[in-house]
Amino acid sequence: MNSAALRQLLDAVRRRRLTPDEAVRRLRHLPFEDLGFAKVVHHRALRSGIPEVVLAEGKTPSQVAKIFQRLARHGPNVLATRATRAHYVAVRKLVRKAEYEELARAIVLRRDAAVHGKGTIVVVSAGTGDIPVAEEAVITAELMGNRVEHLYDVGVAGIHRLLAHRALLTRARVVIVCAGMEGALPSVVGGLVGVPVIAVPTSVGYGSSFEGLAALLGMLNSCASNVSVVNIDNGFGAGYVAAMINRL
Amino acid sequence: MNSAALRQLLDAVRRRRLTPDEAVRRLRHLPFEDLGFAKVVHHRALRSGIPEVVLAEGKTPSQVAKIFQRLARHGPNVLATRATRAHYVAVRKLVRKAEYEELARAIVLRRDAAVHGKGTIVVVSAGTGDIPVAEEAVITAELMGNRVEHLYDVGVAGIHRLLAHRALLTRARVVIVCAGMEGALPSVVGGLVGVPVIAVPTSVGYGSSFEGLAALLGMLNSCASNVSVVNIDNGFGAGYVAAMINRL
Amino acid sequence: MNSAALRQLLDAVRRRRLTPDEAVRRLRHLPFEDLGFAKVVHHRALRSGIPEVVLAEGKTPSQVAKIFQRLARHGPNVLATRATRAHYVAVRKLVRKAEYEELARAIVLRRDAAVHGKGTIVVVSAGTGDIPVAEEAVITAELMGNRVEHLYDVGVAGIHRLLAHRALLTRARVVIVCAGMEGALPSVVGGLVGVPVIAVPTSVGYGSSFEGLAALLGMLNSCASNVSVVNIDNGFGAGYVAAMINRL
Amino acid sequence: MNSAALRQLLDAVRRRRLTPDEAVRRLRHLPFEDLGFAKVVHHRALRSGIPEVVLAEGKTPSQVAKIFQRLARHGPNVLATRATRAHYVAVRKLVRKAEYEELARAIVLRRDAAVHGKGTIVVVSAGTGDIPVAEEAVITAELMGNRVEHLYDVGVAGIHRLLAHRALLTRARVVIVCAGMEGALPSVVGGLVGVPVIAVPTSVGYGSSFEGLAALLGMLNSCASNVSVVNIDNGFGAGYVAAMINRL
Amino acid sequence: MNSAALRQLLDAVRRRRLTPDEAVRRLRHLPFEDLGFAKVVHHRALRSGIPEVVLAEGKTPSQVAKIFQRLARHGPNVLATRATRAHYVAVRKLVRKAEYEELARAIVLRRDAAVHGKGTIVVVSAGTGDIPVAEEAVITAELMGNRVEHLYDVGVAGIHRLLAHRALLTRARVVIVCAGMEGALPSVVGGLVGVPVIAVPTSVGYGSSFEGLAALLGMLNSCASNVSVVNIDNGFGAGYVAAMINRL
Amino acid sequence: MNSAALRQLLDAVRRRRLTPDEAVRRLRHLPFEDLGFAKVVHHRALRSGIPEVVLAEGKTPSQVAKIFQRLARHGPNVLATRATRAHYVAVRKLVRKAEYEELARAIVLRRDAAVHGKGTIVVVSAGTGDIPVAEEAVITAELMGNRVEHLYDVGVAGIHRLLAHRALLTRARVVIVCAGMEGALPSVVGGLVGVPVIAVPTSVGYGSSFEGLAALLGMLNSCASNVSVVNIDNGFGAGYVAAMINRL
Amino acid sequence: MNSAALRQLLDAVRRRRLTPDEAVRRLRHLPFEDLGFAKVVHHRALRSGIPEVVLAEGKTPSQVAKIFQRLARHGPNVLATRATRAHYVAVRKLVRKAEYEELARAIVLRRDAAVHGKGTIVVVSAGTGDIPVAEEAVITAELMGNRVEHLYDVGVAGIHRLLAHRALLTRARVVIVCAGMEGALPSVVGGLVGVPVIAVPTSVGYGSSFEGLAALLGMLNSCASNVSVVNIDNGFGAGYVAAMINRL
Amino acid sequence: MNSAALRQLLDAVRRRRLTPDEAVRRLRHLPFEDLGFAKVVHHRALRSGIPEVVLAEGKTPSQVAKIFQRLARHGPNVLATRATRAHYVAVRKLVRKAEYEELARAIVLRRDAAVHGKGTIVVVSAGTGDIPVAEEAVITAELMGNRVEHLYDVGVAGIHRLLAHRALLTRARVVIVCAGMEGALPSVVGGLVGVPVIAVPTSVGYGSSFEGLAALLGMLNSCASNVSVVNIDNGFGAGYVAAMINRL
Repeated sequence: MNSAALRQLLDAVRRRRLTPDEAVRRLRHLPFEDLGFAKVVHHRALRSGIPEVVLAEGKTPSQVAKIFQRLARHGPNVLATRATRAHYVAVRKLVRKAEYEELARAIVLRRDAAVHGKGTIVVVSAGTGDIPVAEEAVITAELMGNRVEHLYDVGVAGIHRLLAHRALLTRARVVIVCAGMEGALPSVVGGLVGVPVIAVPTSVGYGSSFEGLAALLGMLNSCASNVSVVNIDNGFGAGYVAAMINRL
Repeated sequence: MNSAALRQLLDAVRRRRLTPDEAVRRLRHLPFEDLGFAKVVHHRALRSGIPEVVLAEGKTPSQVAKIFQRLARHGPNVLATRATRAHYVAVRKLVRKAEYEELARAIVLRRDAAVHGKGTIVVVSAGTGDIPVAEEAVITAELMGNRVEHLYDVGVAGIHRLLAHRALLTRARVVIVCAGMEGALPSVVGGLVGVPVIAVPTSVGYGSSFEGLAALLGMLNSCASNVSVVNIDNGFGAGYVAAMINRL
Repeated sequence: MNSAALRQLLDAVRRRRLTPDEAVRRLRHLPFEDLGFAKVVHHRALRSGIPEVVLAEGKTPSQVAKIFQRLARHGPNVLATRATRAHYVAVRKLVRKAEYEELARAIVLRRDAAVHGKGTIVVVSAGTGDIPVAEEAVITAELMGNRVEHLYDVGVAGIHRLLAHRALLTRARVVIVCAGMEGALPSVVGGLVGVPVIAVPTSVGYGSSFEGLAALLGMLNSCASNVSVVNIDNGFGAGYVAAMINRL
Repeated sequence: MNSAALRQLLDAVRRRRLTPDEAVRRLRHLPFEDLGFAKVVHHRALRSGIPEVVLAEGKTPSQVAKIFQRLARHGPNVLATRATRAHYVAVRKLVRKAEYEELARAIVLRRDAAVHGKGTIVVVSAGTGDIPVAEEAVITAELMGNRVEHLYDVGVAGIHRLLAHRALLTRARVVIVCAGMEGALPSVVGGLVGVPVIAVPTSVGYGSSFEGLAALLGMLNSCASNVSVVNIDNGFGAGYVAAMINRL
Repeated sequence: MNSAALRQLLDAVRRRRLTPDEAVRRLRHLPFEDLGFAKVVHHRALRSGIPEVVLAEGKTPSQVAKIFQRLARHGPNVLATRATRAHYVAVRKLVRKAEYEELARAIVLRRDAAVHGKGTIVVVSAGTGDIPVAEEAVITAELMGNRVEHLYDVGVAGIHRLLAHRALLTRARVVIVCAGMEGALPSVVGGLVGVPVIAVPTSVGYGSSFEGLAALLGMLNSCASNVSVVNIDNGFGAGYVAAMINRL
Repeated sequence: MNSAALRQLLDAVRRRRLTPDEAVRRLRHLPFEDLGFAKVVHHRALRSGIPEVVLAEGKTPSQVAKIFQRLARHGPNVLATRATRAHYVAVRKLVRKAEYEELARAIVLRRDAAVHGKGTIVVVSAGTGDIPVAEEAVITAELMGNRVEHLYDVGVAGIHRLLAHRALLTRARVVIVCAGMEGALPSVVGGLVGVPVIAVPTSVGYGSSFEGLAALLGMLNSCASNVSVVNIDNGFGAGYVAAMINRL
Repeated sequence: MNSAALRQLLDAVRRRRLTPDEAVRRLRHLPFEDLGFAKVVHHRALRSGIPEVVLAEGKTPSQVAKIFQRLARHGPNVLATRATRAHYVAVRKLVRKAEYEELARAIVLRRDAAVHGKGTIVVVSAGTGDIPVAEEAVITAELMGNRVEHLYDVGVAGIHRLLAHRALLTRARVVIVCAGMEGALPSVVGGLVGVPVIAVPTSVGYGSSFEGLAALLGMLNSCASNVSVVNIDNGFGAGYVAAMINRL
Repeated sequence: MNSAALRQLLDAVRRRRLTPDEAVRRLRHLPFEDLGFAKVVHHRALRSGIPEVVLAEGKTPSQVAKIFQRLARHGPNVLATRATRAHYVAVRKLVRKAEYEELARAIVLRRDAAVHGKGTIVVVSAGTGDIPVAEEAVITAELMGNRVEHLYDVGVAGIHRLLAHRALLTRARVVIVCAGMEGALPSVVGGLVGVPVIAVPTSVGYGSSFEGLAALLGMLNSCASNVSVVNIDNGFGAGYVAAMINRL
């Protein structure tokens, strides 16, 4: 609700095209839709060319399906993250063109393929086990209109595998790095590139990895200054932030 | 060490302007300088127009002074973070023009005021106690050639204070948000803007804030998708990441 | 066992209507009933017009059913929390009128609809995933004789959704706020109202939410002074405390 | 900013007593005052008869003094918590009538002694070491216009000390319980009274008390349903919540 | 291997009834039996009239059965703790008289009912959910030759339930107290009796009970000085320690 | 307040030697003395031949001195734990015969040297750094009328040092074991003796000892069944529990 | 990529047997093979006579099988750790001679039985439950060409079981010690031998063992100086490190 | 006490050169010396050519001096770690030739310069702040008779600094890597060398480094298989383990 819109509305009141009561009502009328159990927000799509995203985990298939359907009416592309196949089955009944990305556990509706990002986002993963999180980042960034390339299984204990792909890294405008275990990869990548690095700790590991805590702490304490961090396994968040940066 | 440079060097070998032995030596000759206790890196300045930064904490005044001096010979601007006045006294003996920013605990040498950032970086703080961390972010971003504005003491329990400055927020190309205690401010700011938000948890608080852990966890779990996080009290990192984004 | 009762008993001793031995026995005879595996307390109902509540989790269906039945003999309304359908099946065999509230995982016997609360309790939830906990609070407060209204899915990243319902919030005599992830909502709500806010962290989230720990710490460190906190997912406790306040 | 005020403003626009530009400015003009490093809020005093409270910890004496002075101009009573004697010395230079409560570490300006609370607030402490936190609660509640009584050193290992004062407890409209170490007292008190209990864990203890964590977890897991919890050592918060409840 | 035995052996060497080589071998021959995957120790039974106890959890049914059988050959009574019904089925094939105590999850072979304990051990539980742990303590203490009485569901929020049974508590020579959630009961019981109290935290609870951590910390920080603590859910350990004390 | 005393009082009422009002008052009159900031309990001394103990830490010298003086009037022996020399100076002004045990940080008044314990308590320490905690246990047990022997610096990495003193260990009726770092000593000692072992984790260590947490967890998970645990650095508690056991 | 190889390549460039472009390509061509989802590294086998090892956990059976097959083409011996039977079924279809070690959860291909280790590695376990981890260490070390002996179920609470096998321990060139619960065994073993000890904490235990955390902290704080530690349950890592040492 | 020694002693008994009583006494007479507060062990020196090491931290200067003096009488070289200058002053009065290594906080007596290690130990540090810990490792390894080289300030964010020194790394027989912050360096170094790597987490860092916890977890979860870990800041332990390996 910016100043311009507010001034317009006040002008309408002044010119008696709008009663004060109506103006009060309009100021209350914000751009979301109430499903009772959820308030579906449409204005984000308007603002940024991307849909509201549904976190499927913790919601019933039927809830996810209803929210997905509403979003599909307004926005071009729709994304449900951390979704099971059961969620997908429910969504598909209401939204035919929705697809399920098994590896990334995402339900996707792709209707707008316009490119908004100015450069390439490179998604890097330390190990094979980190790929599902990396793929969630890839799909999110692609759906938001970005060219995405990936580089998987280049963990720091075999540093030559990473160095062999420096050219790809230096082509990136933003880099996303997914790693579990000790989470050291973002520091090394951060030192190799001169662009922002989004680090995603994953829950890959066992014992004292404590479900991703070791990787998370490692990334937060990175000695590379161009690294910022999102939540454990939050591939979606990394893709979103990278897309946000890449459209600047 | 990119492909072009490597090809150039190999060309010189081929043309017999360079012996293989010399080439081997040069490949080894990387752009840093060895002080014994520290390897001072100059190439970052070359690459990005910004100096290597010294973390003063945990180093003696004399060590900081020597490193600062070397950096001052090569790079335009120099920054020492988490520095005490004792550090500054030692630095000033070697580098006359160095200044001390008390609030931000930073030693700064400003020689290049060129603007590299394309937009404005806005630094927001939740409370008065968070200002030192916010100032570290401000100084870092400014020194890296950015226009910076700030908005302090706009914590979420008085949401109107924040909403009253929405115009400033919407002018930002990148936003940095510093908050201690519950660390909720980045989520609210993230929902108000359509640009990347760098969240900095601070150690402000007591009891179960556990020296910033509460704020850190809050920010990592932000329900706003455009938020990424740096280490507790890491104003420098936030400023660095923001500058990196703003020059894209 | 207040002074009046004690004096009455001592009077009876003095008037020789009661032998000292009998008096000793009666002083031991406190108002609970012993089922062997549980001591069912009836005096709370007497004291406050509300039944003892059974925590079903960790008890067998048969144990819950027996306790529920005893409570139903004495008190007007009975509540079993964190109950599975299996618990309900066992209870219903003994107490016909017991109902199962699926969403809130509660078994309820409603026989007294008298209103004890002086104002309205408003239950707010940050996301759709927090609704089960919020519903447990709603049912608890209703069963204890309160008018309850709710406001769901108004998380802080879309602050306008919350602000659009300020009128409802300002009607509340007590507010309950349920939130997972960063748990920031109670701070914002606390700043908007001038009444007590009971914050309920939920285990909604993943990764570094650590099963609700992030939300819990956030709420304990709230910068809004009118906020107090109950255990993670403890919708019952929040409803109970709110009812206790609302009848003052 | 309620509907009535908004309608009034819009009416003024309609009647042309106010230009739209001026209206926009006024909508922006919220009731706080900007000191640069802090936004001093006055409307809370207006709303509830109590001043904004300053957390002195983490602010310089000079900052606290300036904020305290501004608050003293508008509100009747002023409170600075977690204040050192150095803070007090600075405040007293600007606000003559300010007093220092050593035990509670509070700076207080008392000008309005009106009673707003309907009943008595009883503040209980488990041990002698918990008294500073308890006193902070006492002073906060008194300053907010409440009759307060206290009951100190009645920890659960000598349960008869507590039971001997049941009469005092049953006179309370709200009870605050401060305890360190195992933090068991709120559960016992909660079982003895039929009113809300605000539990304050303190950092009293050693070893595995982990600076109050043991007490905090104990209180959050209280088996008494009428207990809610504030941050470790947060006597102010407990006093504030209790006062909020007691004026209902 | 005490001095007397050693002297006897050396005497035999001196008298040439034993060669040095044989003596060396015997000094190596310690009183345990090697099953390959386990070294079954029989000397504890000899020493104290009680069998070695098998922790069934983490072992296969077949492993437990074989160890149980060996122990049954040497010792009078045998106990397998944290055993599933599958463990029991395997044991019963080899040891006919073994019984399964479902509630306590224990397999028991009772052949010696001699009383070794000098007084009564009283086992107290805070809630119904703590009974399985309490029963493990009961069975352990009984099997080690003790008179055991129990007192269940006397949590601190209804302190009168506990006080009504003070006579039983004062009859105890040792008291075991099992409690989950806030774990406050041992402190109260400790204050009521003048004998050692063994506290057993249980994993009963949810949210911030963190699987018994809250109760554990509470008990370790007990303000009653006669309390010592065993591991979470370790009813066996509590029964064992209590039996050890009671035979002194 | 046992049944006998209650019956006596009720008899007095019946015989009209006592009015009901007076009886009520007496039932309220419990054996403690109120200093305002502390309720000094004398009945423990009566019950067990040992004084109430004052935890000096967290109390002012003056508070400790006043409590110590009161206790000295009633009980034979008095103990103040975790006391500084400043505490002692204050105490000595009021209680001339009080002594300060520097190593154990204890203030002691010894007037009754009667032996209550039936056997010997042996106090073992793993390293030289654990001696202060061990000495606190020694002094506590001695003051409570026990014969105490000690065995210091016998950590598990030089197991022969411990085994060389097995004779002393087997003479013990109760063993106290103090250890920091990995806290392994109680397990080894527990396996060598057939009596109760009280384990005291100490905060000796660095890095991942986390101020005694490593030792605490080690002891709670001891594979020796006769081990129970008290708080980190709680030598007093260990001495108290051991004395309690030794007088049985 | 050592200097010799680099010089050779540069020589080829100089002699015009290699174009600079080809040289650049070759410098990029590092000795690993790209399967898309994994980069299989062969040079380790070349370097050390041991194959790359696959961590099966978190990979699909099909992924593990494909990687295993590639490794089998190049290296002599192949190992997949933390593998389920389902993984094995998939592997066996592609690699006939692969065997499944159930206890150690390992898939093994043994083709080279050459001995590389100079002495004997002894693997010790504290309890029966630790054997799976110990077996993983045994198999790893054997596959890497070592003589391995084991000593199981010699926990510290029965120290004589361990001391009875001192001769075996003193024969070891490297010792691996696996222990759960309090994790004390490495300290005792470390004191008995004069060679490196690799400590492996296991997740055996319950309650406050916190899935191996207690054992891990215990081992990190070992008072024996010759102990170093690997991750919880990381038998593979221990076997690998021991083999590395034993071939020196 | 090995079999040979035992047999010799038994032979002496047989030949009546030794009475059984004397033999018992001798078997008890183990090679340590009792100072009352400490048992000084000399046999380690005998066994391995290295002295017992004193941890000075937590001991008084006088205690350290006395222990140091005894060790100096028996062993060739003596080391006191984590020593302050005050410790050194006390030691020097008793042992003239003792030296103080300020950076490493070590007191050293060097009398035997014999080389026991077969190869070179290389000590690597990530940053300048890690040097004190690295120096403790250097001094320990040197004192135990090893050739030691170091490589400082080669953290992973500037990977070229490390790669430029690969030749030094490949000369090592054992590598020690000290790193704070994210602790990633051991993984990278581990991948570059084919020998054992001892990782030492340091407490260098701030915020969520949690005094070295982040680095510790990172190293325990290293994806390089040849890495084992010692306690935070435990340079001594790393030097000791490396020396132990290097003499094999």
